[in-house]
Amino acid sequence: MTAAGGDGRRISTVLIIIAMQTEALPLVNKFQLSEDTDGSLFPTGVPWIRYHGLYKELHINLVWPGKDSVLGVDSVGMISASLVTYASIQALNPDLIINVGTAGGSRAKGACVGDVYLASNVAFHDRRIPIPVFDMYGIGSRRTFSTPNLLKELNLKVGKLSTGDSLDMSPQDEASILANDATIKDMEGAAVAYVADLLSVPAIFVKAVTDIVDGAKPTSEFLQNLVTVTAALDQAVSQKNLVAKLISRLTEGHILLLMGSTGIFLLGNTGW
Amino acid sequence: MTAAGGDGRRISTVLIIIAMQTEALPLVNKFQLSEDTDGSLFPTGVPWIRYHGLYKELHINLVWPGKDSVLGVDSVGMISASLVTYASIQALNPDLIINVGTAGGSRAKGACVGDVYLASNVAFHDRRIPIPVFDMYGIGSRRTFSTPNLLKELNLKVGKLSTGDSLDMSPQDEASILANDATIKDMEGAAVAYVADLLSVPAIFVKAVTDIVDGAKPTSEFLQNLVTVTAALDQAVSQKNLVAKLISRLTEGHILLLMGSTGIFLLGNTGW
Repeated sequence: MTAAGGDGRRISTVLIIIAMQTEALPLVNKFQLSEDTDGSLFPTGVPWIRYHGLYKELHINLVWPGKDSVLGVDSVGMISASLVTYASIQALNPDLIINVGTAGGSRAKGACVGDVYLASNVAFHDRRIPIPVFDMYGIGSRRTFSTPNLLKELNLKVGKLSTGDSLDMSPQDEASILANDATIKDMEGAAVAYVADLLSVPAIFVKAVTDIVDGAKPTSEFLQNLVTVTAALDQAVSQKNLVAKLISRLTEGHILLLMGSTGIFLLGNTGW
Repeated sequence: MTAAGGDGRRISTVLIIIAMQTEALPLVNKFQLSEDTDGSLFPTGVPWIRYHGLYKELHINLVWPGKDSVLGVDSVGMISASLVTYASIQALNPDLIINVGTAGGSRAKGACVGDVYLASNVAFHDRRIPIPVFDMYGIGSRRTFSTPNLLKELNLKVGKLSTGDSLDMSPQDEASILANDATIKDMEGAAVAYVADLLSVPAIFVKAVTDIVDGAKPTSEFLQNLVTVTAALDQAVSQKNLVAKLISRLTEGHILLLMGSTGIFLLGNTGW
């Protein structure tokens, strides 16, 4: 298929959803995006922040749900991710959504700290509704927008993503993550996917592993590795000369290159 | 205080958020609300349904997130509740939000099947983020809009409400519900409260107990009691002649009476 959104449109506007400032800023710098300051895009009172810029004829919008206005921490999790995805789609009418962020990885499924995954599927692991059909609604399993050429080009790992509102993992969460056959675990992906699906916008999910969830101390590992994984990825990307490799494949305005701290990816007119 | 929203406005538009069709229809009938059919209020593709009507100079809007378009079940839970609350506030600019629904009740805290509670506080019980300050963001505890006169008038029970995306209750959920000091447990309240707070709209929470969560079989009890509790409440309200009692207190256009299957409440110009 050609480099187009789910309905055949050419990609001209991309919406990047990122939950944490630490995850967002490297991409903001890389693409030299400007922060909205007139506050007209979102309603008064919400802490949501949009950065935007033009990159190779592509309108890039990066939306971060901002800091909680009372507590001052990043507005992580499913509710904020759903709301900013919804409001941003309404305001920006993007052709593609890219949810970029960090994730826990399953050692049993082969994940290592620093790995970058493209999610093939998403599902929830903390919405248990043990009533027939409601149970499937709760799990909310769905395939992500397919990008086989992108995968081949970039040699990313592929795995299923499971989403829940907790950073830790209860035995019930763990059982659901296993049932979801998930390799990576985050706090936003399936929520972004739900809203993108509701409004028929194709969405892909790029997640870098900061901690091993079936290891001894995932939470402290997450904190330890959040910044260093970001840095390590940047370095790995440079060392492997992936940027030069990708730029050499650029063709007139139809190819989108995105390269940031937590992922590097190509969307081309030769097929995704 | 007078019968006004949080910013002193007189109440002229009310937004009622209800998660399930079974919970919504008795109120729709009672107030003879009409379903929107032109589909202009919400974006194309979403299953959200708005009923509206005029009752004693008051614009009543009842929004239900509708049936999941693939699975056909009610779109319950925190994500849908957040999205419809956000989209409805944007579209309707309500002076007051009332989240009405069923809930699990704690026997240890004195709840019985059929009890109707007004929530004094809301919090989440399935957003565990064990990092300082993020932990408080996850719990998201907040007081609801205060209505002491309404409480006295109607003799409702008062209790704290805890919200999570699961119908069942894991040991971790149970510990968090205890830590939240909650008497009732639902799947939407704290999410509605989060969005209402974000956009500075006062919100109250009326919940009828369908099952005892510290009993033996809460899930099957919920299914068994969902319809019968609705009916029993209607009957109880009639027997106690609450409707007549309330109507006798109506004064010219400044008093709002809401009476439905899952609650009965009065908002008056003599103070809430």
